[in-house]
Amino acid sequence: MSVRKLFLLPGDGIGKETMAEVRKFITAMNEKFGSGFETEEGLVGGSAYDAHGVAISEADMEKALAADAVLFGAVGGPKWDSVPYEHRPEAGLLRLRKDLALFANLRPAICYPALANASSLKPEIVEGLDILIVRELTGGVYFGAPKEIIDLGNGQKRGIDTQVYDTYEIERIASVAFELARTRKNKVCSMEKRNVMKSGVLWNEVVTATHKAKYSDVQLDHMLADAGGMQLVRWPKQFDVIVTDNLFGDMLSDIAAMLTGSLGMLPSASLGAPDEVTGKRKAMYEPVHGSAPDIAGQGIANPIAMIASFAMCLRYSFNMIKEADDLETAIANVLERGIRTGDIMAEGCTKVGTEAMGDAILAEF
Amino acid sequence: MSVRKLFLLPGDGIGKETMAEVRKFITAMNEKFGSGFETEEGLVGGSAYDAHGVAISEADMEKALAADAVLFGAVGGPKWDSVPYEHRPEAGLLRLRKDLALFANLRPAICYPALANASSLKPEIVEGLDILIVRELTGGVYFGAPKEIIDLGNGQKRGIDTQVYDTYEIERIASVAFELARTRKNKVCSMEKRNVMKSGVLWNEVVTATHKAKYSDVQLDHMLADAGGMQLVRWPKQFDVIVTDNLFGDMLSDIAAMLTGSLGMLPSASLGAPDEVTGKRKAMYEPVHGSAPDIAGQGIANPIAMIASFAMCLRYSFNMIKEADDLETAIANVLERGIRTGDIMAEGCTKVGTEAMGDAILAEF
Ligand SMILES: CC(C)[C@H](C(=O)O)[C@@H](O)C(=O)O
Ligand SMILES: CC(C)[C@H](C(=O)O)[C@@H](O)C(=O)O
Repeated sequence: MSVRKLFLLPGDGIGKETMAEVRKFITAMNEKFGSGFETEEGLVGGSAYDAHGVAISEADMEKALAADAVLFGAVGGPKWDSVPYEHRPEAGLLRLRKDLALFANLRPAICYPALANASSLKPEIVEGLDILIVRELTGGVYFGAPKEIIDLGNGQKRGIDTQVYDTYEIERIASVAFELARTRKNKVCSMEKRNVMKSGVLWNEVVTATHKAKYSDVQLDHMLADAGGMQLVRWPKQFDVIVTDNLFGDMLSDIAAMLTGSLGMLPSASLGAPDEVTGKRKAMYEPVHGSAPDIAGQGIANPIAMIASFAMCLRYSFNMIKEADDLETAIANVLERGIRTGDIMAEGCTKVGTEAMGDAILAEF
Repeated sequence: MSVRKLFLLPGDGIGKETMAEVRKFITAMNEKFGSGFETEEGLVGGSAYDAHGVAISEADMEKALAADAVLFGAVGGPKWDSVPYEHRPEAGLLRLRKDLALFANLRPAICYPALANASSLKPEIVEGLDILIVRELTGGVYFGAPKEIIDLGNGQKRGIDTQVYDTYEIERIASVAFELARTRKNKVCSMEKRNVMKSGVLWNEVVTATHKAKYSDVQLDHMLADAGGMQLVRWPKQFDVIVTDNLFGDMLSDIAAMLTGSLGMLPSASLGAPDEVTGKRKAMYEPVHGSAPDIAGQGIANPIAMIASFAMCLRYSFNMIKEADDLETAIANVLERGIRTGDIMAEGCTKVGTEAMGDAILAEF
């Protein structure tokens, strides 16, 4: 049995509480199935800033690089609102994505049947919804240079950010989307603003060429990102896989998450390219939700997104398909039985805290 | 009685049909009230390209600059999909915005009571919704340079767009938002991605300073644009005025429009700065919807967004407040009476075409 190295970065706010629940699954899998997980834990975001004056230390970056997979909680909170820009909590997250070269961010937006009524959308619009947003994560306006504020004198400043995409970056994220579509409903919709952005023109061109060269069996559509946002709200079930850039992906995946009524429940996976020799890919798994400083430390946060992120880790980093399926089924069953944290509480259900939710899923697993 | 110069740019697709309905109101107002409207008509988008090989001719640009207000239909369609980038239909629209210096785009998202059920959102989420998105329209990634595709050799290209905002651009759009908020619920929410973008940091800083200096009586909140998109879907009634940049405004206003179930019905106004001597501001009015090539020429398009855009024109360019109110009431009444175009048809209602809808509103006006 091989060793499986996990590096845990709970981060700030509810990240600590939700990560504690994932630990229970790691321990249980080691004990029950001899899964051989080895864990180390580090600091990221405001917690790292408080301890080391940076959003992630070099030592922790090294551990992240050496791990088979990183589990990430959440970062940020009002405590760090006036920290210098380069040390703000998000800088730790962005550095992990960039230095681990995690270019492919997979954000499933599924509507748990038990929660169809929790959405602000009509149940018939979201019931059974299962789409996957594939977001480019290491390029675009997040990392392009120049990125600066210039003092122009006369009390005027200029803020500049640069959106940059190269052919190879678009090609590899498009390939990930097409590959994943083949395991699903075989449909990809690519979104950009080619009517306004040159990077959008190139995006459209490269996705089209990649499709033609290697994936013509997959159905490909193109949509302008603003129209795509509209269509997500109008009739989200028209989509299977959506592929888009870093910034549009940020907006569109948050909207998709909100549609499902399951915001506190959605996981994500951020993957690098497979190593040419070993085939292994760097990976980080994190909930779509944030650090929720308003409820942190009260033991009431919903740990499902974090636990579901661990399920994605089992699936994508360790090819433990059965275990991943079982864990996802356990989550659905617990919801079906009416066990709920406060954020998804509904009439006739049993309200529980973070730990009890984790325990209930573990008992079902 | 003064002359009121309108320049009509129907554009492509359903733009021609919906503009024809607005003409009826112009004629009626001249005849009934002696409103003194003088109209000229020009070409924009694909229609201009077909006639002149450009998305808008210099002669028409001059007429737009000389008019008191421009009424704009819609541009684009598959016919012009492979036109050179600089002549694509959208280039005409972008040039009008830029050369007329229409920096303030006002996009009301209101839910007509008669249509609350047409939304994909639950009626209780959208009933009575009345928010105003104030979008910066002449800056940001739409116009920043460099904006280009570079050939890097080796089959690699690089697409680049530049997001740029100067202090004065943020200050003036923030002021518009605060002024408008004072005529409404006195609340502004500013949206950017300051956790990732330097232009977002500057945006946040300048909006905050403008608020402190001149508008501290208005309630100001800040939200990250991705969270803002979520909140729009979750509970849109929490907002009154939203102020945001060109690209986020494009996405967020389309989403807000879709929420209302009234997409084919929403108008917009794009305003310049008041002239220092005359106080007059350049202005253009256009529906939020596009040219809908799939239904163009069939006489079934919904003309309400175009007519409501004319109502905004009466209000903002000519200070004809009563006439604007009356026109908006006429629209609401016709909907209340169950008269519907196909896009908003519902059980028990009467389905009509573009002309009959225009006539019904005119009869009510
Ligand atoms: C925290 C922030 C930097 C991040 C992003 O913008 O990518 C978050 O919104 C996300 O979507 O993961
Ligand atoms: C047609 C297009 C250039 C335009 C934009 O992106 O601004 C449109 O989407 C809009 O919102 O008015």
